[in-house]
Amino acid sequence: MLSENEKLPKAIDLSHHLSEVSKSRETSPLKGLARYFGKPGIISLAGGMPSPVYFPVASLSAETLAFDSFATTPSVSSESNVSWFWRLFSKGERTEHMTIPKYSTSSPQDSVSLEIALQYGTAQGLVPLQNFIRTFTSRIYKPQYSDVAILIHAGNTDGFGRAIQTLCNPGEMFLTEEWTYPSALASAKPHGVNPVSVKIDGEGMRSDDLRKVLSEWNESLRGAPRPHVLYTVPVGQNPTGATMGASRKKEIYDVCVEYDIIIIEDDPYFFLQQDPYVPKASRSYPKAKDGDTEFLSKLAPSFLKFDYQGRVIRLDSFSKTIAPGSRLGWFTCNEIFAERFERHGETSTQAPCGFGQALITQLLTKQWGYSGYIRWLRGLRSEYTQRRDFFIDELSSRFSMRSVYMAQGPWAGCTALIAYPKVKRPRNSVSEKLMLNDQSIFSFVPPTSGMFLWLKIHFENYPSFKPQDKAILEIKLWEKLADAGVLVGPGWMFASTDDIQKETEGHLRISFSLVDFETMKKSITVISDVLQDFFGLL
Amino acid sequence: MLSENEKLPKAIDLSHHLSEVSKSRETSPLKGLARYFGKPGIISLAGGMPSPVYFPVASLSAETLAFDSFATTPSVSSESNVSWFWRLFSKGERTEHMTIPKYSTSSPQDSVSLEIALQYGTAQGLVPLQNFIRTFTSRIYKPQYSDVAILIHAGNTDGFGRAIQTLCNPGEMFLTEEWTYPSALASAKPHGVNPVSVKIDGEGMRSDDLRKVLSEWNESLRGAPRPHVLYTVPVGQNPTGATMGASRKKEIYDVCVEYDIIIIEDDPYFFLQQDPYVPKASRSYPKAKDGDTEFLSKLAPSFLKFDYQGRVIRLDSFSKTIAPGSRLGWFTCNEIFAERFERHGETSTQAPCGFGQALITQLLTKQWGYSGYIRWLRGLRSEYTQRRDFFIDELSSRFSMRSVYMAQGPWAGCTALIAYPKVKRPRNSVSEKLMLNDQSIFSFVPPTSGMFLWLKIHFENYPSFKPQDKAILEIKLWEKLADAGVLVGPGWMFASTDDIQKETEGHLRISFSLVDFETMKKSITVISDVLQDFFGLL
Repeated sequence: MLSENEKLPKAIDLSHHLSEVSKSRETSPLKGLARYFGKPGIISLAGGMPSPVYFPVASLSAETLAFDSFATTPSVSSESNVSWFWRLFSKGERTEHMTIPKYSTSSPQDSVSLEIALQYGTAQGLVPLQNFIRTFTSRIYKPQYSDVAILIHAGNTDGFGRAIQTLCNPGEMFLTEEWTYPSALASAKPHGVNPVSVKIDGEGMRSDDLRKVLSEWNESLRGAPRPHVLYTVPVGQNPTGATMGASRKKEIYDVCVEYDIIIIEDDPYFFLQQDPYVPKASRSYPKAKDGDTEFLSKLAPSFLKFDYQGRVIRLDSFSKTIAPGSRLGWFTCNEIFAERFERHGETSTQAPCGFGQALITQLLTKQWGYSGYIRWLRGLRSEYTQRRDFFIDELSSRFSMRSVYMAQGPWAGCTALIAYPKVKRPRNSVSEKLMLNDQSIFSFVPPTSGMFLWLKIHFENYPSFKPQDKAILEIKLWEKLADAGVLVGPGWMFASTDDIQKETEGHLRISFSLVDFETMKKSITVISDVLQDFFGLL
Repeated sequence: MLSENEKLPKAIDLSHHLSEVSKSRETSPLKGLARYFGKPGIISLAGGMPSPVYFPVASLSAETLAFDSFATTPSVSSESNVSWFWRLFSKGERTEHMTIPKYSTSSPQDSVSLEIALQYGTAQGLVPLQNFIRTFTSRIYKPQYSDVAILIHAGNTDGFGRAIQTLCNPGEMFLTEEWTYPSALASAKPHGVNPVSVKIDGEGMRSDDLRKVLSEWNESLRGAPRPHVLYTVPVGQNPTGATMGASRKKEIYDVCVEYDIIIIEDDPYFFLQQDPYVPKASRSYPKAKDGDTEFLSKLAPSFLKFDYQGRVIRLDSFSKTIAPGSRLGWFTCNEIFAERFERHGETSTQAPCGFGQALITQLLTKQWGYSGYIRWLRGLRSEYTQRRDFFIDELSSRFSMRSVYMAQGPWAGCTALIAYPKVKRPRNSVSEKLMLNDQSIFSFVPPTSGMFLWLKIHFENYPSFKPQDKAILEIKLWEKLADAGVLVGPGWMFASTDDIQKETEGHLRISFSLVDFETMKKSITVISDVLQDFFGLL
């Protein structure tokens, strides 16, 4: 973080980005009265607050996992699966006990009590949580100006919804990747705000295409003014898994300065960044000697690091690092937007749930502390690496895989794995023919972040394939997989526009985050069998 | 609840009430795939769900208060205050231990586990919570049709926000009481939806004035089409404390049928209904022999009981019965609206926090059960009765109070208490003059529900009073109280329109819900002294 002097220049007034709806949100009438609140000795008969005596929870406790529950490097041996099971079912977890009392004798700045957490509170949330998040954000993301604001929200879906309603009037459009998170689109659409797609490569959104879309913008042709908002999932992009490095982010940011664009950086997978996939045969997981500093320095930076004009609204979430049911995350952005988000919060959720806030605050501030949480995140990162590797290893064992460097297209700059049927002896005439004709079944880029494999199915190699069949084939394949007992994400669901949907049929998004290793193995058997059957190879 | 046959008649299609924004909310793409979810033996690699192994909470526990922690009748003796303190500080609470494990061997229909509660879930919430709420709603509110839908939300502010956006297009208006809950107004306003005020009497909204407003509606004069939505806090109305009885509700409902209006019934204070206030001297709290049935039968019914056309959207909240930090409540309404609310939830909060859902579900379903919760509510009701009585007793002891039946005006049908200065010996010439001239200081109707005293300050008796000073005097008095250490709610904050604000200056909303009895007593000393000083009586 920069010094106190380096505040956001007043010259850059971003308030012209506010939507009409957002501008008309009233400052809470209580704000004017707030100077009286919390004064020592003051008696409040103002709010509709029940006495904490009537909160039926006298104390809250949890058995929490130790922050070093997971190793910082994946296990190499196949025993890892067994040990994973052991941890799960034999209660071999190392846990610690934590308790949150109803009343605390310490100051509410430092301690968590149910008296405060379960009472009506401000939309800013518990003070110790605010402090933790502020420090965390400052140390990890290194924002470029010191008066950066943080504000909690009820998860990134809530955060994005508030952001898009704060920035966009009906009829406006926002820029996003060709494929993107469908819930974001579904949040914006009812407000008359629709996406414009920007081409991607192996690092996610392309800065050259972003500039092209903006410079060639034709308002009457598009039926909307040039967009002033960009939405991106820059790390472990959903669904493609692409991760945007520092230089690409800088390029995108510069285009956004040039065209006066606000960036909504939705980054739930930030800490699930992984080293590149190396095939099993040649892989060795070095025992990590890295400390926290080295771990953090290897992560792709946030857009905040380049944001000298306050154009970035970063959305962080505890969904992937603590649990989705937390429904807790935070905005990091300039103070003007943060104030509007807070007003919006006051008239929707008021504040995220106090039970969740209390438990997560206590866990982060008392149980684990800042460095404990970093250690926890390193463990998670390693677990996801192991899951990704296991999944790709198993999938690779079922097909003949060929590594191909992609020079262009949506995977430009990446090495993709292309899957061919295995040639069996006695030779199967169909599969042999496929190999001979270079007729692959599917391909993918091993992701370096997130939870997903984005599989491109080579329907053009489907027996008696006609181009117009792609969409039908995607659904047909999805149904065959479901009937065989494996649910995956159908590709069409992630297309940002109808055009993209038509162009890009033939994908499946497969998550390696949820099921245990044995089940993963089983699912890959099913997927392989269904694919081979589908392509007429069985 | 009626029999299965008595479903909402298909003839009454309420979908024409949906706003353009709401209509354009898309049905979740996952919905079409949902028939595959949860099938036995199916492996899901579809969602971005972390394995529960990575949820850092191995189990969650709480010490919860016994459901019969509070007596069903208030204590008469002044010892009650002492015993209250004793309960608070001497840990004399009777608590029970409850634990929620990460994994449960029982079915998710019956049991709560963190594996499910902390995972991504549907916007409908945990199944045992849905079941509890469904039974509760059916038994307590007795809806008139059997296919009534229930859907959880993140508190009534979230609920109201979703309702108003689902029903109203920008430029439309909604009907509400002259004074109302300011957060509701603040939720609607940014969407271009503003209130129209309907006159009140001692039972809250007047049905004759509602009909008058609607029958005389002049679209060009008002600049908006005739409203089709009515928002009301019918029990313990905020801020006036009025409670609407059965016949008034029936009248209002009939007007709503006539004019095709949807009723949003915001009812957080439903279980804080109290018997009428009786002055201390003549009061005796009979030992309640009432069972739950009698307790419930005495409560003013919900609008749901009269709703044969599905026009009622009822908002219930755990904020006043468990804790505000729960951020949990539910809609009860027709299935068409509920489906839209669910879509809205999916793209905002997704679902209320899983920590809160888990704890409250376990408390209600396992710890207390249905009848335990009813017993808890009876205890709360008695506590609030005692608080109200104590507050009014103390206030009465500081002034000469006169009981006056109000035949007209906003308190028509109620007996108000009018406060005059006490005549001291040696006689204070000013106060004597006030008494002689019938110059009262303030008045109020002892509420029969909720948390608030709505004080009308008789500024017309202020020395050298000029009518145009009322607004200034209200602020001046509020500031004097705050400077003396007591915060109350300034009346202007609750005016539903600017006109009402101008007409009705001179109110304070005082909450008797939060502070302990000793502090209440102290605050009343301060209020009395400030008022007397303000009126030049000291």
